[in-house]
Amino acid sequence: MIIKVNGQEMQFQDGMNALDIAAALGDEVRKSALAARVNGTVQDLAMPISGDAEVEFLTGKDADGLRVLRHTASHVLAQAVKNLRPEAKLAIGPAIDTGFYYDFDVDEPFTAEFLAKVEKEMKHIIGKNSRVERFELPRAEALELMKDEPYKVELINDLPQDAAISFYRQEGFTDLCAGPHLPSLGKIKAFKITSVAGAYWRGSEKNKMLQRIYATAFASKEELEEYLKRQEEALKRDHNKLGRELEYFTTVDYIGQGLPIMLPKGARVIQLLQRWVEDTEQKRGYLLTKTPYFAKRDLYKISGHWDHYRDGMFIMGDPDDETKECFALRPMTCPFQYQVYLNRMRSYRDLPMRLGETSTLFRNEDSGEMHGLIRVRQFTISEGHLVLRPDQLEEEFRECLALAKEMLGTVGLLEDCTFRFSQWDPANPKNKYEGTKEQWEEAQAVMGRILDNLGLEYTIGIDEAAFYGPKLDIQYKNVFGKEDTLVTIQIDMLLAQRYGMEYVDSDGQKKTPYIIHRTSLGCYERTLAYMIEKYAGAMPLWIAPEQARIMTITDRADDAAYALKDKLEKAGIRVEVDLRNEKIGFKLREARTEKIPYLLVLGDKEAEAGTVAVTKRGSQESVVMSADELLAQMDREIAGKVRDF
Amino acid sequence: MIIKVNGQEMQFQDGMNALDIAAALGDEVRKSALAARVNGTVQDLAMPISGDAEVEFLTGKDADGLRVLRHTASHVLAQAVKNLRPEAKLAIGPAIDTGFYYDFDVDEPFTAEFLAKVEKEMKHIIGKNSRVERFELPRAEALELMKDEPYKVELINDLPQDAAISFYRQEGFTDLCAGPHLPSLGKIKAFKITSVAGAYWRGSEKNKMLQRIYATAFASKEELEEYLKRQEEALKRDHNKLGRELEYFTTVDYIGQGLPIMLPKGARVIQLLQRWVEDTEQKRGYLLTKTPYFAKRDLYKISGHWDHYRDGMFIMGDPDDETKECFALRPMTCPFQYQVYLNRMRSYRDLPMRLGETSTLFRNEDSGEMHGLIRVRQFTISEGHLVLRPDQLEEEFRECLALAKEMLGTVGLLEDCTFRFSQWDPANPKNKYEGTKEQWEEAQAVMGRILDNLGLEYTIGIDEAAFYGPKLDIQYKNVFGKEDTLVTIQIDMLLAQRYGMEYVDSDGQKKTPYIIHRTSLGCYERTLAYMIEKYAGAMPLWIAPEQARIMTITDRADDAAYALKDKLEKAGIRVEVDLRNEKIGFKLREARTEKIPYLLVLGDKEAEAGTVAVTKRGSQESVVMSADELLAQMDREIAGKVRDF
Repeated sequence: MIIKVNGQEMQFQDGMNALDIAAALGDEVRKSALAARVNGTVQDLAMPISGDAEVEFLTGKDADGLRVLRHTASHVLAQAVKNLRPEAKLAIGPAIDTGFYYDFDVDEPFTAEFLAKVEKEMKHIIGKNSRVERFELPRAEALELMKDEPYKVELINDLPQDAAISFYRQEGFTDLCAGPHLPSLGKIKAFKITSVAGAYWRGSEKNKMLQRIYATAFASKEELEEYLKRQEEALKRDHNKLGRELEYFTTVDYIGQGLPIMLPKGARVIQLLQRWVEDTEQKRGYLLTKTPYFAKRDLYKISGHWDHYRDGMFIMGDPDDETKECFALRPMTCPFQYQVYLNRMRSYRDLPMRLGETSTLFRNEDSGEMHGLIRVRQFTISEGHLVLRPDQLEEEFRECLALAKEMLGTVGLLEDCTFRFSQWDPANPKNKYEGTKEQWEEAQAVMGRILDNLGLEYTIGIDEAAFYGPKLDIQYKNVFGKEDTLVTIQIDMLLAQRYGMEYVDSDGQKKTPYIIHRTSLGCYERTLAYMIEKYAGAMPLWIAPEQARIMTITDRADDAAYALKDKLEKAGIRVEVDLRNEKIGFKLREARTEKIPYLLVLGDKEAEAGTVAVTKRGSQESVVMSADELLAQMDREIAGKVRDF
Repeated sequence: MIIKVNGQEMQFQDGMNALDIAAALGDEVRKSALAARVNGTVQDLAMPISGDAEVEFLTGKDADGLRVLRHTASHVLAQAVKNLRPEAKLAIGPAIDTGFYYDFDVDEPFTAEFLAKVEKEMKHIIGKNSRVERFELPRAEALELMKDEPYKVELINDLPQDAAISFYRQEGFTDLCAGPHLPSLGKIKAFKITSVAGAYWRGSEKNKMLQRIYATAFASKEELEEYLKRQEEALKRDHNKLGRELEYFTTVDYIGQGLPIMLPKGARVIQLLQRWVEDTEQKRGYLLTKTPYFAKRDLYKISGHWDHYRDGMFIMGDPDDETKECFALRPMTCPFQYQVYLNRMRSYRDLPMRLGETSTLFRNEDSGEMHGLIRVRQFTISEGHLVLRPDQLEEEFRECLALAKEMLGTVGLLEDCTFRFSQWDPANPKNKYEGTKEQWEEAQAVMGRILDNLGLEYTIGIDEAAFYGPKLDIQYKNVFGKEDTLVTIQIDMLLAQRYGMEYVDSDGQKKTPYIIHRTSLGCYERTLAYMIEKYAGAMPLWIAPEQARIMTITDRADDAAYALKDKLEKAGIRVEVDLRNEKIGFKLREARTEKIPYLLVLGDKEAEAGTVAVTKRGSQESVVMSADELLAQMDREIAGKVRDF
C-alpha cells in the first residue's frame, strides 16, 4: 500500500500500522507520535492500516493528539483509584479542553491526602510504560466482564444492538472505551490532579452524586509547567473571584445559582454599557422596543419554542393542562419584538426596519452549569431584529457585523475573538431544525457568500445553528480557555411566515420579509466578566465605576476636597472622597487595591494653591495640576474611550 | 329622644325615623334626602331610630348618598331584566365608583336592542315611584323565597349562621340585599345603561361567565349630563385608546393580558424617564443595584412573601414539592436589594445607605383586573431602599418625599395627586401583618409625627398598609376617576432583623437598622399612561418621542432637510424627515395628528436662505428662523423640562 505522510509517498506492506510507519520515519517522529490521523480519522497508532492512505502523526502540539494522551491518562487515574480503593465504582472519564476527569461512585469524598496517594500511584503505573491494547467483545461477554461495574453495565446496555463494544487494557486494568488511546503509558510525560468536585451521574440531579477528579496531562514537563503558570495567572484574573473581591457582584445561596446580584460597581458598568449600546444603535437607525418578559404558551407554540426548547424554559403553570393559563419566561426576544412590526401593515418603504431592545432573557439550565457571570439563568442582552427585503440582506448583515466589531473593539475584546459559521447538521435534522434541506442549503449558501465577500476568517461549526437558520457566532475564550459565544448574527429565511409578517412591495404584492437576528455587544453580564478578566479588574477610565478618588492628607484640606468633588461631579465624573483620619499611604494603597483610575491627593499646599496632586493608576509618580487641567485631561480620555489613559 | 341634625338639637318621639325628621325640616331636605348617616352609620331613611342620635342627611352630592341611590337603581335594573326575560337568573348588583352593575346568568348575550328595552322598562318602573321596604327572614324561609335563584341560594348558604338575612322589596320585585336603599324609586332622577361585558361568577375563571350590565344613575338630570360630558372628554384622553392610536403600546392576545408591548414611542419615553430618574437619584447619593428577577422559594420564606403573598406570585415548579427546585418571580425588590447591604459588615458611618434600582416586578393578578398600562402583570419601577440609623429616619423620609414631589411635579402629575397615610387594621392583624400591636403603634406614631411635621394634608387608609409597616401613598385618579397608587414611601422597623441586617454603631455595638421602602416616580408604565391622559397625547417637548419633524414642500429642499436633520440630531434632538411626494398641508395634518411638538417646513426660500419655517404644536403660525436659533430655543425648552413651550 502507498502511504502519503509528511508530503511524501512511501510504500508499506498492507496491514502495517502507524507505529511501523513512524519507526520508519525515524526516532523523532516515533517518540513524539501520540496518535495518527488516517484518511481524516484519528485512531490508535497500533491500529492496522489496509490500503492506500494519507497519514498524519499527532503530537502533544495537536489538540487531537493531546486529547488522546489525556484520555489515556484518565484510564491511569481510574486504575490508580481502583488500586487504592477497590470498592470504588467507575463511571466515565473523558478528556476535556483543559485536561480530563474521571467520575467515581465512592462512599466518602476524596481527601487531599488520598489524592496525593493517587498521584503517586499514577506515577508508578506510568513508570512501568505498559502497552495499551484494544479488543472487542460480544455484548454478553462484555456484560460479564463488567459485571462488577454497574455504571459500565448501564452504558453497555444503552449501546445500539449492532454497535461494536470495545475495551482498552493496560497491565492490570481494563476499561470500556471507544478510544483512541496512546500505544503505551510512557508517553504521558507530565500530569497533575487539579481539583475534585461532586457531579451527578449523567448530569442529572435525579441521579446519584458521584465524586469527580479533575486533572490535566501533557506530552512534556515544560508544557505542564507552562500551563500551571498560565492557570495561576488566570486565577488572578478570574472574574468569579476578582469580580467578587472588587465588589462587582455576588451570589446568594437562598436566591439561587446563576442569579448574580449586581453590586453598585457592576450595576454601574452595565448601566453605562447599555446606554452606550442604545445610543449607538439609535444613531444607526434602530427603533427601541420594550417587550414583556413572559407570555402565554400560545406564543411559544407559534414560535416553535414549545416544540424545540421547552426544557430550556421556566414554565409557570401546568404545561399539559390546556384548560388553565400557562406562561413561560422568554428564552429569546424574537416573537415578542415581531409584534412591533405586526402592529400595522408595512410597505417596502418601511424596510429595513431595525428593532433593538435591552432585553432580559431566561434559560433554565442545570445548577451545575452555572459559572459566575458567564453562565447564568437570567441575563440581559442587546437583542435586535432587522426585518428586510431580500435585496437588503447582504448590506444589513455587513452593517451588523461592523457594529459588533466596533463595540467589541471599544471594550477591548475583539482582538481575542474568533468567528464561527454555525450550520445545521444535515444528518440530524429531525425535530431539531425547522425547514427543508433546500431551505437550509439556500440560507447557508447566502450566508457563506456574504462571509466570503467580507473576507472574514472563520471556522465552521456543524450542528451549531439556531433551529431557524445559520449563524455567525463571535466566540471568546475566558481566562481559563473555556469558549463561549459573545455575539451572534443570524439569517432567518423561515420564520417570518409563521407570524404572518408581510410587506407590500413596490409592485403592490404582499411578500414575506427576511429577518436578521443579532446582538451588538451580546450579554452584558458576560461582557462585564470578560472585561474584568481582560483588564484584571483595572477597568478603562470611561467605564470604571469609580473614576477618581480624592484623598486628603489632613482635615485642613476637607473643604478643598468637597469643592473639587463638586466640580468633577458637575462635569459628570464619578468621584468619591476619602476624608478618613488615616495616613495618606494607607488611603493610596486601598485605592490602588480597588484599581481606581485617578488618585487625587490634597495636602495643605494643594488646598491653598487650588491644585491637586494627580497619580494615574499603575504609576507611582504624581503631577500637580489645576482642577481645570485635570478635568480637560479626563474629559479627553473619557470621550475617546481610550483603553490606556 | 333628642336628635342632633344640621347643628341643632330637636326633640322627637322615640322610634320615629329619618323620613319623619326630614319632613319636619322642610321640603328641601325631604326631597333631596337619599339616606341618613345615624351616629356614623349609613342607613335607610325608613329605619326607626331609638334613643338620642346624631343624624346627617345624605344627598346626591355625597358619595355615600349616591351609592345608596345607585344600589337601588341596580335593583330596578334587575327587575326590568326579569320583567323582560323571566328566565334570567340574578347574581349580584353592587354600586361602584362610576355607577353600578348587575350580573345575570342568561343563555344569550344582551343585544343593544334589548338594552334599549331595559332602559324603557326601568323608566316605567321608576315612574311608578314604588316604596322600597326592608324585611328579614329566617334562613329556611329565605331559601324557600329564593329557591328559583341558584346564585342567591349560594349567597345565603355562605352567610354566617347568626347573620340576619335581609331582603328589599319594591312593587313586584324582591332581592336579597343588606341595603341600605332609597325609601322610594322616584328619587332616581336620571340613569343610563353604559355598557355590557362578560364577567365570571365571583370573578373566577373556574366559574360560569355571566352577562354584566353597567349603568350609572344620579339624583338630577344635570348631574348625569355633566357626567356623560366628562366621560366623552375622558374617552378622548383614555390612554388605553389614545396610547394605542398614537402607537405608544399594543397588546397581543396570544402573549397575554396585562403584558403590554411597548412600541418605539412608548419604549423611548420610558427610556428617557428611567435615565432621568437614575441620574437624579445618583446625584442624591443613591447607589445603583441590579438584582435578579426571580429566586428560590427559600428567599420568600425568609421575606414572608411565601406566607403573605404566595397567590400574587408567578411560581415556577411545584411549590409543595420540597425535594425539587422551586422559583418565583419577584413581586417586589426588597429582599434582593438587601443582599447588597449584606455583602459586607457595615458601620454607622456607612449609613444612610441609599440603594436604587430600575426594577421589574411581576404580580399574578386576574385577567379581568388588567387595564392598559395601569393594571399590568409586569411593570418596571424606580424602587429603592434606604438603610438607616433611627436618628436618620425623619430627615431621609423628608428627602424621599421631596424627591417624589420633584419628579411628579416635573412630569406634571403632582397637581392632581392626593396623599394617603395607609395604616394596618388593628381589628384584622391575623396573618396579614407582621409584628406586634406595640410595634405597629410605634411605627405609625413615628410616621404620623413626620407627616404632621411636614404639614402634609392626607387622608387615612385603614387596612392599606404593607404587611411590614405603614405607608405614605401618593394617589392619582385616572381620567375616568379610578384611583391608584403612583408612589409609595414606607417605614419598616420590623424586617431588617429577619435578614440579619446589622451595623456596628459608634459605641461598638451591633444594631439593627430601620428601612425606608420607596419609589420616586413609581411604575413607569403607569406614569406613561397618566401622562398620555394628562396631555391628551401631546407630550411635553423634553419627553416627546419625536420632538420635531422636518417636512419639505418639494424635493428641491431634500438636501436642506437632511442637513437640518443632521444638525439637530448631533445636538441630541429626536427628529424625523418627511420627504414624501405629498402636499405640505397633508404632511402637516399628519404631524399634528401625531402631536409632534415642532413642525419644521422647508420650501425653496428656506432651503436657499438656510432657514426653516417653524410651527409649534397647537399653533397655526409659523416663524422663519435659522437652524441655530431653532436649536437654541429647543435646547432651552428641553433643559427646562417646560410643560408649555
